[in-house]
Amino acid sequence: MNNYNVPMLDTEARVEAKAYLDMLTKPVGSLGKLEEIVMQLAEMKGHRKPVIYKLGIIVFAADHGIVEEGISAFPQQVTRQMVDNMAQGGAAINVFGRQQQAEFSLVDVGVIGDDFTGLVKNRKIRQSTQNFLRTEAMTEEEVERAIQIGYEEALVLFDKGVDCLVVGEVGIGNTTTSSAIVAAITGMDPAELVGFGTGISSEQHVHKINVVRQALEFHQPDRQDGYDILRKVGGLEIAAMAGAMLAAASNRIPIVLDGFISTAAACVAESIGKGAVNYMLLGHQSMEPGHQKAYEYLGKEPIVSLDMRLGEGTGAAVAFSIIQSAVCMVNEMATFESAGVSGKNE
Amino acid sequence: MNNYNVPMLDTEARVEAKAYLDMLTKPVGSLGKLEEIVMQLAEMKGHRKPVIYKLGIIVFAADHGIVEEGISAFPQQVTRQMVDNMAQGGAAINVFGRQQQAEFSLVDVGVIGDDFTGLVKNRKIRQSTQNFLRTEAMTEEEVERAIQIGYEEALVLFDKGVDCLVVGEVGIGNTTTSSAIVAAITGMDPAELVGFGTGISSEQHVHKINVVRQALEFHQPDRQDGYDILRKVGGLEIAAMAGAMLAAASNRIPIVLDGFISTAAACVAESIGKGAVNYMLLGHQSMEPGHQKAYEYLGKEPIVSLDMRLGEGTGAAVAFSIIQSAVCMVNEMATFESAGVSGKNE
Repeated sequence: MNNYNVPMLDTEARVEAKAYLDMLTKPVGSLGKLEEIVMQLAEMKGHRKPVIYKLGIIVFAADHGIVEEGISAFPQQVTRQMVDNMAQGGAAINVFGRQQQAEFSLVDVGVIGDDFTGLVKNRKIRQSTQNFLRTEAMTEEEVERAIQIGYEEALVLFDKGVDCLVVGEVGIGNTTTSSAIVAAITGMDPAELVGFGTGISSEQHVHKINVVRQALEFHQPDRQDGYDILRKVGGLEIAAMAGAMLAAASNRIPIVLDGFISTAAACVAESIGKGAVNYMLLGHQSMEPGHQKAYEYLGKEPIVSLDMRLGEGTGAAVAFSIIQSAVCMVNEMATFESAGVSGKNE
Repeated sequence: MNNYNVPMLDTEARVEAKAYLDMLTKPVGSLGKLEEIVMQLAEMKGHRKPVIYKLGIIVFAADHGIVEEGISAFPQQVTRQMVDNMAQGGAAINVFGRQQQAEFSLVDVGVIGDDFTGLVKNRKIRQSTQNFLRTEAMTEEEVERAIQIGYEEALVLFDKGVDCLVVGEVGIGNTTTSSAIVAAITGMDPAELVGFGTGISSEQHVHKINVVRQALEFHQPDRQDGYDILRKVGGLEIAAMAGAMLAAASNRIPIVLDGFISTAAACVAESIGKGAVNYMLLGHQSMEPGHQKAYEYLGKEPIVSLDMRLGEGTGAAVAFSIIQSAVCMVNEMATFESAGVSGKNE
């Protein structure tokens, strides 16, 4: 097991950022959440005028053995088909990635079938997790390899100049896996967390809750131990996502969280590397009910709320525009003094 | 008085847009408000796959005689100083305009002092409105000229290829003017609408409410008549903003509304040209209390809510990124058929 050392936030840079924001040609505090984003980026990056040169989007793909239990609206082969779609540039995350001029990376860590051709990075650990209602999802070694691969693949992006990271996913069944993870970490009843995923019926929803409840009763994962939770009820792509987040946090690189699965991975990352959560901004509020519970557990607030529930990293990628607005603002606005604008009446 | 003919929405294009969105490689409806934005743009532009080539931002500047009553936190000369700042590219609206690669236009319709040099368009109607607590803000002719100038200046942008419009403003005192306008149109008590503007004290806030109440009692504007309201308690830049909105609506060009002042101008535009409201999207929810009352009156919902209260058009310009995400999505995503992705389980 690695030891992940997440650096402390630079609280002095936050104070300096606040003072600088108050010098800009606008009423104090009038840019609201944009100013808060600047202060958070300042703490992370250690500079009162933080910059972001390039967004990176890394998507991990894997299959889930729990799909055997009939918990998804879409058939399992859609994981593979969506990876192909992403490799061709036709998925929603590709579109938003191009809009943001992001560096894009797509990594197979556990999709059923042969290696992909084309732009997909083949780092398959195994073909799908096992069905965690019957047995452990994966071995301890597989968990560690998945985290390590996520960590390494994030570093590849950082070497290309990426200094802000969206971590996305594709994996039919992974809202069920995420429900189990978040229930294990927070101690909540799965009924509070389980949603309708890509669009199941009310009947399937009840079934999905029961599947998660039974799995947790069977495995009794240790809520303090992210490794134990991943091994028993985790997903290969979720472990890799946690690894990528740990790489970002260790390098003071801001992470933009997406929806439920991304936030489940963030809970795991924080469990494994304390303080990783300090390097996370929450892009959007998803329609999945478990998302709010998970981000409140992490102490986060969403930047936008657009009734999205697609996954892939899409909500984070869309919200990145707002983060970029904040960065442009602090770097480009004139100060009262430089512009010769009068202050408030005495 | 002109007759503004606002075309009907193309409801068939909306239906076609919905059908097309459901063919894209995502669960039906999973892109939430982005899908709603696409459908609205489809209705406006008459095409199931609406495009936006270029955002335009037009900012109108003017002074307000009501400032004599001590209703603003900043001195009146800040209007002129902020116009200079905008002409130099140092204001928040310039920053967000550059981020959006927008065509930017800055028009003086009533700032106190001589004509500006540099990039400002000099179309001054008079130097400031009159103090509407004592007399009518302007003459009927001045109202009509202001609306006409706004209309013409918007057309200049459309000739440059602009096909989506943000209408911003600068004018110390204009939240007071907007409160009077919105109270007149909706019939609400000014106490429900008047906010803290750029940052007045609680004492000044009570005073500001009383000023607006007294002005409305004195003038008794006709709530059905946008011209009458503008003449009695309006602002030169607000009349021009309404004119620009009427130009956009008449040309089926979507308008992105900003905060309180922009929404007050939208109420006037709808009063003068029925159906103009159909061509408006609301960019953001401002912290000004009157904003919510005004946009609910227009039947709008904000795209983002970032606790902003700066004006200038900034909230709309920031929110434009989300609209652009929606446009990219419908134009660039693959369909289930083209990507060979399976549909939902039966």
